[in-house]
Amino acid sequence: MKQGLFISFEGGEASGKTTQIQMLKDYVESLKNKDDFVFVKEPGGTILGEKIRNLLMHDESDPPVAKAELFLYCASRVHLVEKVILPALKSGKTVIADRFFDSTVAYQGMARNIFSSDEILKLTKMLIGDLKPDLTFYLKVSPEIAFKRKNPNIALDRIEKEGLKFHKKVSKGFDFMTKLDKDRFFIIDATKTIDEIHEIVIKKFKEIHNTQ
Amino acid sequence: MKQGLFISFEGGEASGKTTQIQMLKDYVESLKNKDDFVFVKEPGGTILGEKIRNLLMHDESDPPVAKAELFLYCASRVHLVEKVILPALKSGKTVIADRFFDSTVAYQGMARNIFSSDEILKLTKMLIGDLKPDLTFYLKVSPEIAFKRKNPNIALDRIEKEGLKFHKKVSKGFDFMTKLDKDRFFIIDATKTIDEIHEIVIKKFKEIHNTQ
Repeated sequence: MKQGLFISFEGGEASGKTTQIQMLKDYVESLKNKDDFVFVKEPGGTILGEKIRNLLMHDESDPPVAKAELFLYCASRVHLVEKVILPALKSGKTVIADRFFDSTVAYQGMARNIFSSDEILKLTKMLIGDLKPDLTFYLKVSPEIAFKRKNPNIALDRIEKEGLKFHKKVSKGFDFMTKLDKDRFFIIDATKTIDEIHEIVIKKFKEIHNTQ
Repeated sequence: MKQGLFISFEGGEASGKTTQIQMLKDYVESLKNKDDFVFVKEPGGTILGEKIRNLLMHDESDPPVAKAELFLYCASRVHLVEKVILPALKSGKTVIADRFFDSTVAYQGMARNIFSSDEILKLTKMLIGDLKPDLTFYLKVSPEIAFKRKNPNIALDRIEKEGLKFHKKVSKGFDFMTKLDKDRFFIIDATKTIDEIHEIVIKKFKEIHNTQ
């Protein structure tokens, strides 16, 4: 049975990930077979997922404790996988995900430090079995540069220490995953210009579809 | 440091659990030290938990797939534990929970059959560490009687097969837990009358508070 391709995008804050996904979306829209591509975003991507996203991102009345946050992400993900991603892949479509479990390891694992990366990988296995992306674009940017991009008015020597520390941990989490699962990752230097990165993405995107 | 008592109530559908907890609540209300008791209900019990409960119980637009359901329960629980149960226990109060993780093993484990009981127990350990009730009242009723109580107009020989099957699995899940963790469980025959059961509950309730 033909199985579609599963592609994910990963990157820390201010890595330009959202811009690049939008540019890829615009490119796909120009293709004749544009209906063969499905874009999904975590958390969210389903009616239930959007409600969970709302609890995670915009609800100030009783913000989830760190572990509750992780489990809400997990709930949203598994729902998206079963309702959208697996059916699309089974019908031979290409699925492009804005973040997948690498982000969970980086953010909820390394950065929040509530569980070990190993525990999160076990949890992921319980949730989605052996499903993983065929290709992951990782937009890599040093924590210092990411932090500066997000806070252009703060001099780097006066930075709020916690903020940079968090960026460093996230970055370490992605490094952990790229080492663990080398063959899947396509690492792009996110300090290149937007157009340069887009060109690299499209080249690789065409390549993987042609060699499929 | 003095630590409060943690008591949970468990039972399948139509076991009379809700009635008994309400009667215990009324009893506690009559006590001088009524403020030393905290009643909690899963899922729910916090602002976030109530919103999650709503997604689980009343939202028909996109009902969670089985694994998402489990993870939503987990998120609600860990939030309740960290925000309400642990602080109350630390201040020496008695916490009385309407369901705790035994229900997760019985319903999401055995009955839905998405994970093994062992996997759910591991998950529970990740979530709440070694926290478990000091005493669990289990209102035990045979699946056949529970099913009849819920569906009084259906003759038992014409029962909807799936319904009874589900009740049987839930019952098996509770049996598994009562064997695994014998000393914690106080099993009550739920075919006794409401008043008889209440009397048994109050007797045990006083006993455990006096021997603390």
